[in-house]
Amino acid sequence: MSILHCIVAAICVETPLMDKKDKMKYIDRIFFPRSIAIIGASEVPGKWGFLLTSNILGGGYEGDVFPVNPKKDKIMGLNAYPSIKDIPGEVDLAIIAIPARLVPDAFRDCVAKGIHAAMVITSGFRETGEEGARLQSVITNIAEQGDMVFVGPNTMGTVSTFHNLISMGVPLSPMPGGLAVISQSGNIGNQMIDWATHKGFGVGFYAGTGNEAMLKTSDLLEYFGSKEEVKALALYIEGLDDGRGFMDAARRITKAKPVIALKAGATSSGSKAAKSHTGSMAGSFEVFSAMFKQAGIVQVDTPSELVNVAGAMSNIPVPRGNRVGIMTLGGGWGVVTADECEKSGLYLPPLSEEIIGDLDKRLPGYWNRTNPIDTVGETDIELQVHILNILAHWDAVDSIIALGMVGREVYLANSIKYHERVSGKKMDPDVVDALMRKYHNVEMRFFTEAARLQSETSKPIIAVSLSGGSTETIVRIKEHGNVLFLSTPEQAVNIIKHMYVYRKYLDGYGIRVSR
Amino acid sequence: MSILHCIVAAICVETPLMDKKDKMKYIDRIFFPRSIAIIGASEVPGKWGFLLTSNILGGGYEGDVFPVNPKKDKIMGLNAYPSIKDIPGEVDLAIIAIPARLVPDAFRDCVAKGIHAAMVITSGFRETGEEGARLQSVITNIAEQGDMVFVGPNTMGTVSTFHNLISMGVPLSPMPGGLAVISQSGNIGNQMIDWATHKGFGVGFYAGTGNEAMLKTSDLLEYFGSKEEVKALALYIEGLDDGRGFMDAARRITKAKPVIALKAGATSSGSKAAKSHTGSMAGSFEVFSAMFKQAGIVQVDTPSELVNVAGAMSNIPVPRGNRVGIMTLGGGWGVVTADECEKSGLYLPPLSEEIIGDLDKRLPGYWNRTNPIDTVGETDIELQVHILNILAHWDAVDSIIALGMVGREVYLANSIKYHERVSGKKMDPDVVDALMRKYHNVEMRFFTEAARLQSETSKPIIAVSLSGGSTETIVRIKEHGNVLFLSTPEQAVNIIKHMYVYRKYLDGYGIRVSR
Repeated sequence: MSILHCIVAAICVETPLMDKKDKMKYIDRIFFPRSIAIIGASEVPGKWGFLLTSNILGGGYEGDVFPVNPKKDKIMGLNAYPSIKDIPGEVDLAIIAIPARLVPDAFRDCVAKGIHAAMVITSGFRETGEEGARLQSVITNIAEQGDMVFVGPNTMGTVSTFHNLISMGVPLSPMPGGLAVISQSGNIGNQMIDWATHKGFGVGFYAGTGNEAMLKTSDLLEYFGSKEEVKALALYIEGLDDGRGFMDAARRITKAKPVIALKAGATSSGSKAAKSHTGSMAGSFEVFSAMFKQAGIVQVDTPSELVNVAGAMSNIPVPRGNRVGIMTLGGGWGVVTADECEKSGLYLPPLSEEIIGDLDKRLPGYWNRTNPIDTVGETDIELQVHILNILAHWDAVDSIIALGMVGREVYLANSIKYHERVSGKKMDPDVVDALMRKYHNVEMRFFTEAARLQSETSKPIIAVSLSGGSTETIVRIKEHGNVLFLSTPEQAVNIIKHMYVYRKYLDGYGIRVSR
Repeated sequence: MSILHCIVAAICVETPLMDKKDKMKYIDRIFFPRSIAIIGASEVPGKWGFLLTSNILGGGYEGDVFPVNPKKDKIMGLNAYPSIKDIPGEVDLAIIAIPARLVPDAFRDCVAKGIHAAMVITSGFRETGEEGARLQSVITNIAEQGDMVFVGPNTMGTVSTFHNLISMGVPLSPMPGGLAVISQSGNIGNQMIDWATHKGFGVGFYAGTGNEAMLKTSDLLEYFGSKEEVKALALYIEGLDDGRGFMDAARRITKAKPVIALKAGATSSGSKAAKSHTGSMAGSFEVFSAMFKQAGIVQVDTPSELVNVAGAMSNIPVPRGNRVGIMTLGGGWGVVTADECEKSGLYLPPLSEEIIGDLDKRLPGYWNRTNPIDTVGETDIELQVHILNILAHWDAVDSIIALGMVGREVYLANSIKYHERVSGKKMDPDVVDALMRKYHNVEMRFFTEAARLQSETSKPIIAVSLSGGSTETIVRIKEHGNVLFLSTPEQAVNIIKHMYVYRKYLDGYGIRVSR
């Protein structure tokens, strides 16, 4: 370990910094600009300048937008300006999507206009070789001299949903929410936002960091970490050239909210691919793992795990320990879930005499009297809610997994279809409606009780569906908060396992936050 | 290993068998009955006798159905009979859903009627304790003496989609297809069928084996394995009390088609839960792993992996080796996928000079010249198809993963939405239609080429989507067969890894089937 520590120290070299307060103030303009200039705005479908303008306006951004294009008077109904200097009002953020060789002049114009924040979509910089690297130094210099921060170049964009701002080349439609995402790959970033959206996780903030010429992952980590709306952060990292800044920011933030990271390029094949991708110093995987551990960052292996774990942690509380209580509609799930728990270092305490005595009165005589509690197919909602209450109030468990209690809509729909086929006639739509509503109400009763108990006890309660027809994983209960509703038991266990890693870190610092 | 072999031999005790040919003939009546008697058929919603009748009739079964219920003249429009003996015609299969204590008499009636195949849904046998175990012996004896095979008791049913037969308590709607599933847990079995259906995998046959009083997993493995329609088998196993029969059947079948198995109860928690569930001898996990390896069974860890791997193997060819070629729309995915490949024992050969020379002419100067081939965002379909052809015809790779080439419909839909918001008016539906069709045609061109090359070269070609909005994983190309279309790279790698395990087994026997 001490060798690793030395290596960690060695790669954490000091880098020169703009005054931090100013930097954070300027970064804020990237995510909460009152006005935006789009340099290279276009009406030609497919062009980046078209996509960005369309996504910003179509995404519902409410501030002023100034398209800059010397060849047009109007773009998408807005007045266009020949150059940045011609824009009449103040500009908080410049988004740049013009050929690389024109970016230095655009940067000079931005500085002259008093703009302090930019995002450079344009590619053709360091990622293309020496000439591009030189050009990248030029623009970085102009920005540094001109008191301007910028994301990129070669980024696919940023998102700030609380500000209705989709500054992306790709038309995504994330909802506001407690998850912040930072990605050193544009495609992975897009995919993570899209997954999160389909899963029902709100993404409050996103930054694709591109070549990180000026603003690094560490800066965005610091900024997102400081936002109250952010409940958990997800990082996709290929390499870091600001190890110390990253560690400093991470250490501060993880004391208050979870940071989950994927270090890509873990293997020699992956690391070779990473080198040809972002060109950043990949660093040894072991060093990164050691850094993450030191800084309380929860490490995951794949982008989908990153979305699942971080999305979950932005919505539900962290358990106090590794003890899990399970209730299941059928025995098989209990077996599979118990296996996954034990493989993941989670513990299933045996039921207390008191619980056994209580359930002896309610379940068929041959019920299994162990944890996982097999409800042997009983679908009575009052019984299910009762068992859920027992588990939530049982001191011996820190989190709860409920298998198959909810999520049977596909079966009801098929039942109706079959019934219609058997009877040879369509069911009365009012009857179908009433059935669906009744069914929905029963499921919502379970979810509401789960949300209430989760909020009351600060124990995460995760429901797992019987069915595989939906990508949604969040159920929103207005009065009590969100409940996680997954499609496989192993996802539930994987999330609790990672939350427990974070809990152990907090415990090491005696931090008792229950989020 | 030699100790393991001894243990394997020790648990593979000989069990008495009905003449095997008869047994298989009778099992065939469970899956291809010309007529079915439903003992305990009911019109009371929620009752098993109701659900079974409704699912069989509603599922489209075309043979004769004879409801048996002493209190009714008609059930769901069909003539009902007071007892089995009163049924006028011949009965191939008796499905039994009456209280446990009445099952022995029903069995006697079945035998008297000359019925050779039954399925017993009823629970309340061995799973409930000693008294139930005794009752189970009674019915097993009657069946053995009476030359009748039966699935169950305590099963949730069977499925035979090529015969339009859903003999299930739960209304599932699987499509016909090359996957056969055997499950020792009803709930896991239902979930697997439902997942497979939502993923687009056809399930030709399913059996929930219940208590396995007479027909064991090994019998159904033997039967399903013998069906030409079956291309791959998925087994959920908690325990086996017919180890030798199982090994014999498995060894025979795996020479011709893949068998994928999950042994649940791998840990002490899981094994405890399994004991309280099916009560079957769980056996040590290591022993099972050794058995599986010997018999060429591909082992997986979770039910969803079981569905993914077996579903994939029922649709696409097994690669000849572990060498993977990757093409990707963006660098990040390449990195992640390369990592996953190396972790899984797969190898990414470096590109040949010839391929580099060819692509130098087609990709931007700074392209990465390595495998994964990063197309740096180029979405030109002709270029994509060209690279796919290069990889498929390159001798150095055995399988291909195409990342982000297809699956961008969500972005097109959002683009249209944003465009409408920006312009303040709805787009002409004909224009939207034309856009969607054009987009669809471009994607289908890629899928068709993938299917054609897969069929021509016998190399599996797996596409991974950019988006997370769908659960579908199969694209059907009429002329060339099915292509796999997954939502994460790790799923693609995991499938190839397991297919390679099977390939090594086949190689060990010098079997050159290319499926």
